[in-house]
Amino acid sequence: MSHPAHTISQHLNALRGQMQTHGIAACLIPSSDPHLSEYLPQYWQGRRWLSGFNGSVGTLIVTADFAGLWVDSRYWVQAEQELVGSSITLMKTQTVNQPLHLDWLAANLQPGQTVAVDGDVLGLANARALQQTLGSANIRLRTDLDLLTAIWQARPALPQQAIYEHLPPFAATSRTEKLGALRHAMQQHGASHHFISTLDDIAWLLNLRGADVSFNPVFISHLLLDHTQVTLFVGEQKINADLVQRLAADGVSIADYSTAKAALQAIGSDARVLLDPRRVTLGLREAVAPNVAIIEAINPSTLFKSRKTAAEITQVRDTMVQDGIALAEFFSWFESAVNRDTITELTIDEQITAARARRDSFVSPSFATIAGFNANGALPHYRATTESHSEIKGDGLLLIDSGGQYLGGTTDITRVVAVGTPSAVQKRDFTLVLKGMINLSRAHFPQGTLSPMLDSLARVPLWQHGIDFGHGVGHGVGYFLNVHEGPQSISRSQPDANMAMLEGMITSNEPGIYRPGQWGVRIENLLLNVAAAASEFGDFLHFETLTLCPIDLRCIERSLLNQEETDWLNDYHQTVRNRLAPHLTGDALAWLENGTQPL
Amino acid sequence: MSHPAHTISQHLNALRGQMQTHGIAACLIPSSDPHLSEYLPQYWQGRRWLSGFNGSVGTLIVTADFAGLWVDSRYWVQAEQELVGSSITLMKTQTVNQPLHLDWLAANLQPGQTVAVDGDVLGLANARALQQTLGSANIRLRTDLDLLTAIWQARPALPQQAIYEHLPPFAATSRTEKLGALRHAMQQHGASHHFISTLDDIAWLLNLRGADVSFNPVFISHLLLDHTQVTLFVGEQKINADLVQRLAADGVSIADYSTAKAALQAIGSDARVLLDPRRVTLGLREAVAPNVAIIEAINPSTLFKSRKTAAEITQVRDTMVQDGIALAEFFSWFESAVNRDTITELTIDEQITAARARRDSFVSPSFATIAGFNANGALPHYRATTESHSEIKGDGLLLIDSGGQYLGGTTDITRVVAVGTPSAVQKRDFTLVLKGMINLSRAHFPQGTLSPMLDSLARVPLWQHGIDFGHGVGHGVGYFLNVHEGPQSISRSQPDANMAMLEGMITSNEPGIYRPGQWGVRIENLLLNVAAAASEFGDFLHFETLTLCPIDLRCIERSLLNQEETDWLNDYHQTVRNRLAPHLTGDALAWLENGTQPL
Repeated sequence: MSHPAHTISQHLNALRGQMQTHGIAACLIPSSDPHLSEYLPQYWQGRRWLSGFNGSVGTLIVTADFAGLWVDSRYWVQAEQELVGSSITLMKTQTVNQPLHLDWLAANLQPGQTVAVDGDVLGLANARALQQTLGSANIRLRTDLDLLTAIWQARPALPQQAIYEHLPPFAATSRTEKLGALRHAMQQHGASHHFISTLDDIAWLLNLRGADVSFNPVFISHLLLDHTQVTLFVGEQKINADLVQRLAADGVSIADYSTAKAALQAIGSDARVLLDPRRVTLGLREAVAPNVAIIEAINPSTLFKSRKTAAEITQVRDTMVQDGIALAEFFSWFESAVNRDTITELTIDEQITAARARRDSFVSPSFATIAGFNANGALPHYRATTESHSEIKGDGLLLIDSGGQYLGGTTDITRVVAVGTPSAVQKRDFTLVLKGMINLSRAHFPQGTLSPMLDSLARVPLWQHGIDFGHGVGHGVGYFLNVHEGPQSISRSQPDANMAMLEGMITSNEPGIYRPGQWGVRIENLLLNVAAAASEFGDFLHFETLTLCPIDLRCIERSLLNQEETDWLNDYHQTVRNRLAPHLTGDALAWLENGTQPL
Repeated sequence: MSHPAHTISQHLNALRGQMQTHGIAACLIPSSDPHLSEYLPQYWQGRRWLSGFNGSVGTLIVTADFAGLWVDSRYWVQAEQELVGSSITLMKTQTVNQPLHLDWLAANLQPGQTVAVDGDVLGLANARALQQTLGSANIRLRTDLDLLTAIWQARPALPQQAIYEHLPPFAATSRTEKLGALRHAMQQHGASHHFISTLDDIAWLLNLRGADVSFNPVFISHLLLDHTQVTLFVGEQKINADLVQRLAADGVSIADYSTAKAALQAIGSDARVLLDPRRVTLGLREAVAPNVAIIEAINPSTLFKSRKTAAEITQVRDTMVQDGIALAEFFSWFESAVNRDTITELTIDEQITAARARRDSFVSPSFATIAGFNANGALPHYRATTESHSEIKGDGLLLIDSGGQYLGGTTDITRVVAVGTPSAVQKRDFTLVLKGMINLSRAHFPQGTLSPMLDSLARVPLWQHGIDFGHGVGHGVGYFLNVHEGPQSISRSQPDANMAMLEGMITSNEPGIYRPGQWGVRIENLLLNVAAAASEFGDFLHFETLTLCPIDLRCIERSLLNQEETDWLNDYHQTVRNRLAPHLTGDALAWLENGTQPL
């Protein structure tokens, strides 16, 4: 995936040629596509093609004599390595989506100069922030130019993977029922039409799945509905005739992917179109005629799918047993093989994916496995490659962050295990992270608490020792859908009313400590929002830990845990043992029993 | 202060007459003045005059056939009582400044109708929210009408209290030094002019104090400065000739209070005026000519004064000893007199204020003492009156929230003490609140953490038992200035970058439990942000507890405290004893020694 420096230089020069032709002082290339997805098809990976940086999030700005890549702290080390030899300056931001590149543009461009961004891959809300910052500095913005297509010679094609149905019992609510709920929400908003671009919303709504991008089982599409019709805009050859018929029976017709913009342009002036400004691009928003009323609100489907139904939760609990079996088989193999066989970080990915693949309902990994030994574990988004990876031997900590897509749910788990003998300082770090993880896991809180307000609970045991980490504590998780989904986020994000914690949501809990060049610790479970006893003070929630896998007792400095924490850990291990033991035999069972002994 | 129902009815009818004359469908009357102060001079208490509700915050909306008062949960009970017999509907909001009245206007008015608000008492940021909500519903907004003056016959005059200097050693930084820092900040913003309306900013900047409103030692004024001149707009007879001269020597000239708007109108088109949209009214903002550039940012003085200097902190620590002496004398008297003499909630206010008044540097209470016995303690903003108060006798809990203005700082403390024998449930509530208070007090956190992110730390021990409370955990506290000051706020507010926790800030820590009709518990200390050891992860802060007063050991259910909490309490009590004992004798010393024994 990485490009030699001279290739990058050629790409940048080609772009600068285009910029000169169009009178553009600066070109901004975000990491985004028309669906504002996390994982982009190669067709829309222009920022990667131009910069050589392979991280999933980063913003490139190119001027006549400068090129800078803004990346958040998760990717600093990776970007430093991948930009070596290029003329691109690494611009560090602390957190994701910090708009420091906007300040840079405002400070470095002259009034009257023009910035270009492709409006077809620019979210509407982001476009507004951009317009405001540049406008107040009297810098012009053009969003109607696509400067990439002309210079990107061997641009990859759009993906063409087949679309399939997500069926009962895994899909527990029919698409007609979901469409009914969505139309009810449209009515409450006073909307006649609703346009959706986000792929997980569309997949959830229609009980369809695909494989157009890595890891997320979605397919490239848009969707337009009113109170009688639904049109799915999609590569028509991706849906077989049988499925087309079944969709038609539920009122869903198919149109070619390329015709979505025209359909928006054709909406009549008496319509009221519900659009989510964070989930639709500027280009599509501007396709709607100026005399059509727009109602801006979060996609109702984004809210609906975040609250898993009782039937889905039953499936997820079962999926966690499947994932737990795979993990027990993997870890028992690892314990027997480490410091005996040659094992690299790549072996970990192979073995853990193989163990999951033995489970019936497994579909694919839910993201690229992170297996980082010692110093590599200090890179929160490390990915071992055939060119660069470590052998796992001697002493230290191995961090493994991995997950699976199953027909009955999506998993995401991080464990750190001892290799040889961990040091006292490593055990202290591990135990502090565990304390943070437990502190959040034990919390009760009022239904409707804005999820960012819970972030400090997982950090305060680390803060107490002068330690912090640069990523959020937790993200929402889909149901056989995106491993990162909103609206909730346990992080230092700006809270809004859509981020309220509600019953049925699934969120990760993954504090960490990263010591660059030394080691990293992160411990991650998935948590379900469950009703706690209501009181005169209102409705309360607490967390049910869904993930079933022992936490390495050999890494714990017991004197740092208080009684409540020790009790939580013992209870958790008892649950893990009770749920998994009936499904395990031999080495895996022995590993489970050993790893879940009470402290 | 309360008006009979028929008087309220007359006022509302007079307003409705004015509305009809001007073609106004709805009139919105906020609780605010041209300075957006918390405590309003009677001259601007139009909402109180119109509604009969005496709480400090509430929004009145009057239409031809409806009148509603929106108040937050702190005031629900008080408003229910005070609105009895009136035609005004109590509209409950959960938290302060929740803009539900805007939704009401949007839902209940017809497109084309007009809402009137007096732009001279409407903050610019609030005005924009109002314009946006009403605009999107096609409702017109008029802000150029003052409908009150014509109908408010016996409207009180503006206050005329004398202004005096805050002198060294209490005022530790000269006004010229403060003006220099402010002009440096203006330069960084590229501003030629800066206009300030907030009274505590002006008092802080000029080292002046006044007594125009209750409790906050400020004076009604505006201030305009550029890089050479400072003009203070104030009632000219409030400053004596000697002080006028001393101000003139520091470059500060005086103009009449009524001329501030004209001075803004006179600013030339080459100026760049720094204004704080949350701290200036729409009326004053619109006085600036349309061709003058406006730079919007938080008042630099608001940021400066929130970070107490080392010299100020030395004064505050000393002031806390003075306040602690007064509290020890008060509480030792109370212990000897309760259930022996007749003591009412009013006696508490008299005695605690008398004890503070015996301290040399005492100026006034910093807010109206809240002394609530049992059920009255369940009203977070309860105030006993001669007409309505309880006698303190028998068994239960007495909540006392009080504070003093001293030349060397502002205090604010809440203690709950046992009367007779508290019940087991009362002790449990007390101990849960204490756990919340300790959990926040013990926290370390990165410098720059947004203060709202710490709110959950004080709540989580209560949440664990299905309990929550409707007010924030903590507010910033001024230095012989407002007892409530920004920008930081440990609460469920929308965080912004100006709310970062920085070294030298003083913030209250006051979780509570309120059981309507039964009792209330709140425990409050003031905390200072102090540098903790920096690490490879950045700079960290922790809290120094400034308040010096024992926490009633008789109310604690010891089994609910863990070892860290018990250790914190014992350490705190040891500090209190060490700091106060040298200054006490007799009963007060005995009370202190008894109340600070280790658990």
